[in-house]
Amino acid sequence: MKATIMHGPGDVRYETVPDPRIEKPTDALIKLSATCICGSDLWPYRGLNDSKGPQHMGHEYCGVVVEVGSAVRTVKPGQFVVGSFCISDNTCPHCAYGFHSSCEQIEYMTGAQAPYARVPLADGTLVATAEMPDADMIPHMLAASDVLGTGWYAAVAAQVRKGGTAVVVGDGAVGLMGVLAAKELGAERIIAMSRHATRQSLARAFGATDIVAERGAEGIARVKELTGGVGAESVLECVGMAASMEQAMGVCRPGGTIGYVGVPHGVTLDGQKLFFAQHRMLGGPAPVRRFLPDLMDRVLKGTIQPGKVFDLTLPLDQVAEGYKAMDERRAIKTLLKVD
Amino acid sequence: MKATIMHGPGDVRYETVPDPRIEKPTDALIKLSATCICGSDLWPYRGLNDSKGPQHMGHEYCGVVVEVGSAVRTVKPGQFVVGSFCISDNTCPHCAYGFHSSCEQIEYMTGAQAPYARVPLADGTLVATAEMPDADMIPHMLAASDVLGTGWYAAVAAQVRKGGTAVVVGDGAVGLMGVLAAKELGAERIIAMSRHATRQSLARAFGATDIVAERGAEGIARVKELTGGVGAESVLECVGMAASMEQAMGVCRPGGTIGYVGVPHGVTLDGQKLFFAQHRMLGGPAPVRRFLPDLMDRVLKGTIQPGKVFDLTLPLDQVAEGYKAMDERRAIKTLLKVD
Repeated sequence: MKATIMHGPGDVRYETVPDPRIEKPTDALIKLSATCICGSDLWPYRGLNDSKGPQHMGHEYCGVVVEVGSAVRTVKPGQFVVGSFCISDNTCPHCAYGFHSSCEQIEYMTGAQAPYARVPLADGTLVATAEMPDADMIPHMLAASDVLGTGWYAAVAAQVRKGGTAVVVGDGAVGLMGVLAAKELGAERIIAMSRHATRQSLARAFGATDIVAERGAEGIARVKELTGGVGAESVLECVGMAASMEQAMGVCRPGGTIGYVGVPHGVTLDGQKLFFAQHRMLGGPAPVRRFLPDLMDRVLKGTIQPGKVFDLTLPLDQVAEGYKAMDERRAIKTLLKVD
Repeated sequence: MKATIMHGPGDVRYETVPDPRIEKPTDALIKLSATCICGSDLWPYRGLNDSKGPQHMGHEYCGVVVEVGSAVRTVKPGQFVVGSFCISDNTCPHCAYGFHSSCEQIEYMTGAQAPYARVPLADGTLVATAEMPDADMIPHMLAASDVLGTGWYAAVAAQVRKGGTAVVVGDGAVGLMGVLAAKELGAERIIAMSRHATRQSLARAFGATDIVAERGAEGIARVKELTGGVGAESVLECVGMAASMEQAMGVCRPGGTIGYVGVPHGVTLDGQKLFFAQHRMLGGPAPVRRFLPDLMDRVLKGTIQPGKVFDLTLPLDQVAEGYKAMDERRAIKTLLKVD
């Protein structure tokens, strides 16, 4: 089959690769219903990660099971499934504690920007629906695999509460999903920090009550102004840069919580500064599996429509253009149609 | 009167100073019942803080109100009071949120290693008892002012829960109070990391179920062994050095929480490491005022005896020897008798 390979920074190709197959008895093979490009795919695309040679791309996925290994018990061929970008066994002490992204058998999904993909630890990773969802549900279901689950985790880690105030730093796809999550979790005030008109309006559509376009000291001052000089109790850091973490700390009230889900690049925290700021911090790769059944349920009930975050849809064989559009910030997030 | 002045590293003198007096209408003047030396007093004593010239020492205190300013409403002369080392108004949004140590009017208490002391913002800072406590209650009441309140906060910040597992890093007075707090908050397993026989036995007396004498990688391995390979859900970091923070992170399970109350000296956290470790972190100067009424109540009921942490008692005029004994680790914590 053909699949997406990144040969180096800026060099994404849709090319022939060996067909994926069951390699271990715990594997499942799925036919993708749709796939997409993640903000984190842009790190290597921009040369900001160490290059490890050509790599299979894609870790967000949903689709139909076509084959399972001999040990797989909870999913079967013909079922529609969504899985997390983190492969987990869902049984180890860390999974049982809700931190599937620290599973003792953790692997990161790869190779999902393709028509077919192998999912390891299928029993622990995949969640099946009772029925085949309608086609218009696919983008929303796909979002649950990572971008929604990650924004959701940012809100949960930031301890967003009913009636509370949340600030979302970052207007990328994850930040926008963070807005949606904060809304669903009952935040009364949701302040989205965004300078881009289209992202601002999407943020409002997902539930933002206020937009702060300023950054740095001005952005902090503006949030303080909006929160009676106090700052926010919940801050979702959805970027992963030093400047965005500074921004998050600047708008968080003492005793408030920062949930950070952007993989930190060049972020160093000064212990004494953090101490006197009195910010609770929790971050990490999102344990999406913890939230998947709930998120899929909300999608199927029509309560949330996270798939609206996809503002560019391309056929899979135009994946390179999808990367380019996101890199140039022409697109927030690219959905790739399979078939 | 005479009081304790630190002239520079290692140079503590008990010498004549102007008598403290009411300076603002919100002040109270108290006659100390007892005072003590804090582990944090050793930072300047050891030359590890920037020296700002001679300074009045002492921030842990309890005693009897002798005079109040014209605006003071909640305490009156003749009452026995305990106050936090953090001066707070107890009314601002940060105090209302439970973070008195970030009060909009925050000051740090000073000059309490003396027979008399001025306490600013008396209404917000001091908590009075209904009756004059017995003399044997004084050490326990004094402990509530900082060392107990700080150890308590470490346990609260580390989200110690009934039936849970807590590790206490640091066997100083605060660490030992952290053990006591973890016990009171219902932890089933309390692992104290300590190499010193006397501190180990005090830790056991306060509720430690296990002692780990090893440090570094060996200490981490030992805690992992004691926790089924998982690590602890609650870790109390009660030192404030890079090595102790490393230790805390090493023994904390993914999704677990580190409460850190040792003022960080030379501690820098790598964002990406923290991210993948998935540790929840909360630290800061303890908002002791939040806990004071409860802690004083537990002391008066005889539920807890935190004053046992004082293993050296000296008359106030021998304060210099008290510092020396703690610096040389001959004493865990020195109580200074007044009169």
